[in-house]
Amino acid sequence: MTETGSRTGILIIAHGALAQEMLNALEFITGPQPRARAIALDHALEVDRARAMVVEAIDALMSPKGVLVLTDLFGGAPSNIALSTLDEKNIEIVAGVNLPILIHAVSQDESLSLRAKAEALRDYGRNNIFRASDFFSGKK
Amino acid sequence: MTETGSRTGILIIAHGALAQEMLNALEFITGPQPRARAIALDHALEVDRARAMVVEAIDALMSPKGVLVLTDLFGGAPSNIALSTLDEKNIEIVAGVNLPILIHAVSQDESLSLRAKAEALRDYGRNNIFRASDFFSGKK
Repeated sequence: MTETGSRTGILIIAHGALAQEMLNALEFITGPQPRARAIALDHALEVDRARAMVVEAIDALMSPKGVLVLTDLFGGAPSNIALSTLDEKNIEIVAGVNLPILIHAVSQDESLSLRAKAEALRDYGRNNIFRASDFFSGKK
Repeated sequence: MTETGSRTGILIIAHGALAQEMLNALEFITGPQPRARAIALDHALEVDRARAMVVEAIDALMSPKGVLVLTDLFGGAPSNIALSTLDEKNIEIVAGVNLPILIHAVSQDESLSLRAKAEALRDYGRNNIFRASDFFSGKK
């Protein structure tokens, strides 16, 4: 049993230092998140090495609750490498991560299924992208 | 006339180094973006100084096409400071920025109005957040 106990792990995978800075912003707002990790997938990294890093991080975060993998962009290398583990691990992948998704991820009801958590994160992320002017005109 | 010419400026404002790393990821994928800037709003920064930095960056990017301001989170300091300039500048603010929004922002049709650009970015950002499993099951 790792320090994450039986809480859902959260793995952020993105281009370069973006993943770590998303985690830093999350922790600045919400406090330390020991069950969250960030992986930088550098273009200089070979695919096999990158995949090994992702698998290692998923395994370190794994518990009966599974792991939420949050990637910056569907179709990019970070997302593609995460996808290559989808069939063999108890994970859910949500692409297009923004800061609202991360904040919601660390405060979700642990009794939800992993799939329900991923669906809720998707919806929360979408609902928290908006034009400021729509908010003030009452459209949001 | 600045190097941005008559193209819409793009200003990313976020907590800490997140804005710069989003810009770095964008430029890694799309190449250099001279009309885009990133501002780190550190919590140690006084509000007046932070607002001055935002105004200065908006003015540097300004053209007849206006400036798109993309913030990490509605209700956070970066977003609130951007909002305080909304009435006096030709800007649109979209909150909840993710990497798909940035990629779309630098390839938008310049003939659209600034408002139409912001609405398209909002919709594109929302549409590019999804569960990987939905994609493969044909739901997306």
